[in-house]
Amino acid sequence: MKGKFFGIGVGVGDPDLISYKAVKILEKIDYIVLPEAVKGEGSVAFEIAKKFLNEKVQKIFLEFPMIKELEKKIEIRKNNAKIISEYLEKGNNVAFLTIGDPMTYSTYSYVLEYLKAYEVETIAGITSFSCIASRLNIPLVLGNEDLKIISVSKDTDFQKEFENNDNIVFMKISRNLDKIKSEIKKLNYEKNIVLVSNCGKENEEIHYDLGKVEEVPYFSTLIFKKGGFYE
Amino acid sequence: MKGKFFGIGVGVGDPDLISYKAVKILEKIDYIVLPEAVKGEGSVAFEIAKKFLNEKVQKIFLEFPMIKELEKKIEIRKNNAKIISEYLEKGNNVAFLTIGDPMTYSTYSYVLEYLKAYEVETIAGITSFSCIASRLNIPLVLGNEDLKIISVSKDTDFQKEFENNDNIVFMKISRNLDKIKSEIKKLNYEKNIVLVSNCGKENEEIHYDLGKVEEVPYFSTLIFKKGGFYE
Repeated sequence: MKGKFFGIGVGVGDPDLISYKAVKILEKIDYIVLPEAVKGEGSVAFEIAKKFLNEKVQKIFLEFPMIKELEKKIEIRKNNAKIISEYLEKGNNVAFLTIGDPMTYSTYSYVLEYLKAYEVETIAGITSFSCIASRLNIPLVLGNEDLKIISVSKDTDFQKEFENNDNIVFMKISRNLDKIKSEIKKLNYEKNIVLVSNCGKENEEIHYDLGKVEEVPYFSTLIFKKGGFYE
Repeated sequence: MKGKFFGIGVGVGDPDLISYKAVKILEKIDYIVLPEAVKGEGSVAFEIAKKFLNEKVQKIFLEFPMIKELEKKIEIRKNNAKIISEYLEKGNNVAFLTIGDPMTYSTYSYVLEYLKAYEVETIAGITSFSCIASRLNIPLVLGNEDLKIISVSKDTDFQKEFENNDNIVFMKISRNLDKIKSEIKKLNYEKNIVLVSNCGKENEEIHYDLGKVEEVPYFSTLIFKKGGFYE
């Protein structure tokens, strides 16, 4: 019998925010896949999940380098899916651990595309923005308001987004911090934002004032609330 | 010593999607608050969480009727917060159970506003849209795409939203199903949507074709993907 492929969201920092369902799978699973952007750099997802894993679990590190050419990317995804499929063919159950939620900006989606022939179960996880809102006791979205989630890039049209949305989550801001700071200042929204890095981890940082923030870690998310915060 | 106030997201259907952290709190908590839209109608959040609750737990049902006047709503919220504060003043820990995530369109946010003087801990939960995406193995948002979350009302400008966003989650669609169906048809997006009701529950429904869908339950969410689905 072929193995089953699991995609498991482990949340973004606090291990106990993982779902009860994920814990039960991790306690029994034989193989875990850990995506890495750079070979040998280690895995944040593993650090979060490790307390729930059984002693015999074997780690499969797969490299997903951050490159630009789509064709090359697709080739890497296919190769990595093939490596996973070899374990599944031998009847092993394999769990792909993913930071946050497996269906929200995750590498897991890219390999899943090539593994649909197997039995698959995806276990949702807590996103960075849900984690931050609860951590700070700030509603993300209320009543008739709307919410936009943006992965910031050089093409992000900040002015249009601020205009069209009541609440915005800006992800992957580290490379575009200066631009986002100047847009916020220009529109006078300095009191309408909070920036959180490494939510729920030991090195968590929270900034309601971006004035003195010069650079931020990779895992940084900025939340904008047009209606402001309630205190 | 005063009690601690917890806001706990229980997810939308499958009890095991609740976080490990929430389970540990529910096993020990003395009082749970269960919001009801209509007195005596029961609580979906309780049905999801009940297997984790201890035998001695006491239920506090609080009515939050769906009315239009904001002033009256605020009065009700304040009264309900006052009832909770009376338990907290006596040193009882109280957990407010909320469907989905406590910071995403939840009644919890409205009472929290009046209970900030107490020690508060909010535990994030899996939203309907994260649940659906994982359940169906469909990526919600990838790469440089964006995602918009909308609670549908009579004021929703569908055309503008379809134009401005790569992926959209339409929540609370039951009252506006006809309108949304005709907008989807008009823009030729029939192949770009999936509608899921009661995700993860026994009465779950999944529709990729809205043609014959005449009405849907209250807990229904529609996901739009401009790029389509991958199979």
